[in-house]
Amino acid sequence: MNRADRPAVGDSVDAIETPALVIDLDAMQRNLAAMAAFARAHGVRLRPHAKMHKCAAIAGLQMAAGAVGVCVQKTSEAEALAVAGVADVYITNEVIDRRKLERVAALARRIRLAIAVDSAEGVDRLAEAMRRVGAAIEVFVEIDVGQGRCGVAPAAAGALAHQVVSHAPPEGGLRFAGLQAYHGGAQHLRGAAEREAASHHAAALARAAQASITASGIACPLVTGAGTGTFAFDAASGVWGELQTGSYLFMDRDYADNAPSPQAPRFEHALFVKSQVMSRGAAHAVIDAGHKSHAIDSGLPRVWARELEYGNGGDEHGILRPKPGALAHDLPQLGETVWLVPGHCDPTVNLHERYVAVRGGLERGIVESVWPIEARGCFA
Amino acid sequence: MNRADRPAVGDSVDAIETPALVIDLDAMQRNLAAMAAFARAHGVRLRPHAKMHKCAAIAGLQMAAGAVGVCVQKTSEAEALAVAGVADVYITNEVIDRRKLERVAALARRIRLAIAVDSAEGVDRLAEAMRRVGAAIEVFVEIDVGQGRCGVAPAAAGALAHQVVSHAPPEGGLRFAGLQAYHGGAQHLRGAAEREAASHHAAALARAAQASITASGIACPLVTGAGTGTFAFDAASGVWGELQTGSYLFMDRDYADNAPSPQAPRFEHALFVKSQVMSRGAAHAVIDAGHKSHAIDSGLPRVWARELEYGNGGDEHGILRPKPGALAHDLPQLGETVWLVPGHCDPTVNLHERYVAVRGGLERGIVESVWPIEARGCFA
Repeated sequence: MNRADRPAVGDSVDAIETPALVIDLDAMQRNLAAMAAFARAHGVRLRPHAKMHKCAAIAGLQMAAGAVGVCVQKTSEAEALAVAGVADVYITNEVIDRRKLERVAALARRIRLAIAVDSAEGVDRLAEAMRRVGAAIEVFVEIDVGQGRCGVAPAAAGALAHQVVSHAPPEGGLRFAGLQAYHGGAQHLRGAAEREAASHHAAALARAAQASITASGIACPLVTGAGTGTFAFDAASGVWGELQTGSYLFMDRDYADNAPSPQAPRFEHALFVKSQVMSRGAAHAVIDAGHKSHAIDSGLPRVWARELEYGNGGDEHGILRPKPGALAHDLPQLGETVWLVPGHCDPTVNLHERYVAVRGGLERGIVESVWPIEARGCFA
Repeated sequence: MNRADRPAVGDSVDAIETPALVIDLDAMQRNLAAMAAFARAHGVRLRPHAKMHKCAAIAGLQMAAGAVGVCVQKTSEAEALAVAGVADVYITNEVIDRRKLERVAALARRIRLAIAVDSAEGVDRLAEAMRRVGAAIEVFVEIDVGQGRCGVAPAAAGALAHQVVSHAPPEGGLRFAGLQAYHGGAQHLRGAAEREAASHHAAALARAAQASITASGIACPLVTGAGTGTFAFDAASGVWGELQTGSYLFMDRDYADNAPSPQAPRFEHALFVKSQVMSRGAAHAVIDAGHKSHAIDSGLPRVWARELEYGNGGDEHGILRPKPGALAHDLPQLGETVWLVPGHCDPTVNLHERYVAVRGGLERGIVESVWPIEARGCFA
């Protein structure tokens, strides 16, 4: 790929070619500190989800602020971050493919690694792969706490934990570590009361799973899960001992559309797509950022600090019009910069090679860092 | 990024780790030949849009089959393909940024390059950039033929062409090349009659723009445009002398949902995402391919050759259920392969680093080539 458009440290914001993924470092660091303080104050561990940022430099900042490690969703994400120096990674997902399990086992010999399971066959395949190379891995039994995707029913957790323990050291390489309990669907329920109810429901299911495990005579060291929409409720329940929040760091439009949770810190938008007007009609302006530069799975981006509405212009364009009631004179001119707040951070980040991290705000800031997004495209 | 998951030439299809972007080479080559034959038979030039495949190897196959060059949408795409050996590229889009125009000018010194314009300021900026390095570029005036995005009104084409000509060689570097007339919104009108009507409307507007140009005393050498949904109508109009079709090569679910155009060849699905079941419930199966491995801007993927419906499982998962009326027993087992037909090729390709090109079908084929997607992420 051509890299002529790479921005340099010390450049002004103006010099960043568009479209570009830009971090407002001041806002990001306030978000980082607020989440770290919340976890400390509530006596829970923080293991942020790096599927969101996919970046070793950011994982490093999170760990420096007290995070115990990071989560990822895919084997190749774990590999990419490990190569870049992240030494404590939890794959919060199942791996079934034997070739991929060989990779998991190879990685478990190099870093502290954990993984989720939700089937007897998965446990046996994992154990076989670990045995073959003499590696050890921490294993969480995933339970379905309302999402209806992966995970076993709470009542089945004990049997699966038992099977994990049957492959325990010193003979086997699986260390039972607890429960994976994440309800993705709960994170974007708009009302705080709805999210609280979903969290309570998930907590009840997690308690039932804990009971199923202890009834098998096995200790359940930890329940891990939670996201940016529910973590304050999850932490208050006393069930979760580790929070996997990711999006708090950047805050996308979709999360900002949630009614705030009363006990949660307020997070600021810290991730933006810088774009430029490259065509101008009488009643609309066209910018150079379409859905190849920001994901639209959770809706269109919001135009930042302007009375403009973003309309879908396809893969490479966005079409801006004044908001109802706003003046046509608010429409930006040819060449003007327009900042977008992405609808959903995670898949937006996955489109970009790097972050341009800016200190001093979007108007007159300076490029402080350019961070590679090492795990971009690592969905295997 | 980690490359442990890179497949090797000669591997069986079974050995391709998931998710992976797989080309059925036999189907693709039939599509390639059918489109090339159509263009020859209708006496029009073919300049396929490489924004769809972003790959120099595929551009090479298209040019070997008679294409005059390729189109791209962005400067960085042109750069990436040029580095990989593509020597005739048309940027079918406006560039306004002066730094980016410096890159356009630098590229115009190395390869045969064309670009679109739709503003007086854009023409002047382009001319200035070309003059500075003593380069020449072909320039198409873009007209809006119904999309309501970029492009001037047909009546304004003459004045803009005149301005382009005012920067003509030997003093200036702009060679007026004709009209860019593409109606993206017409491509996915479901009924063939609707698409035909949109094509007729676009043709009338293009004729008006040609008249505006010839009235200025300027010859209009070419009208270029058309897409996979309308090209047969566009070619029949006699207006377009060059077709920019892209998706015909891979055929996504969205294009397959169109009622066929009577005069167009039938194209086959040639692009697939290989996925694997990694979690299994009693009534659903979860695969390892979500919208980080295929774009959902034009709807969800179709499950290939199975009576299964794909449900959105988020960034990294898909949730499969039997189609209404199908048997639960059709649900695939843990570890089973499932092939997806992406909803929209272009942004799906943009998520991947490479194509795994398979000869002999998806069931028992062999990896014949692994092609880098050089322009992936080149949206700047």
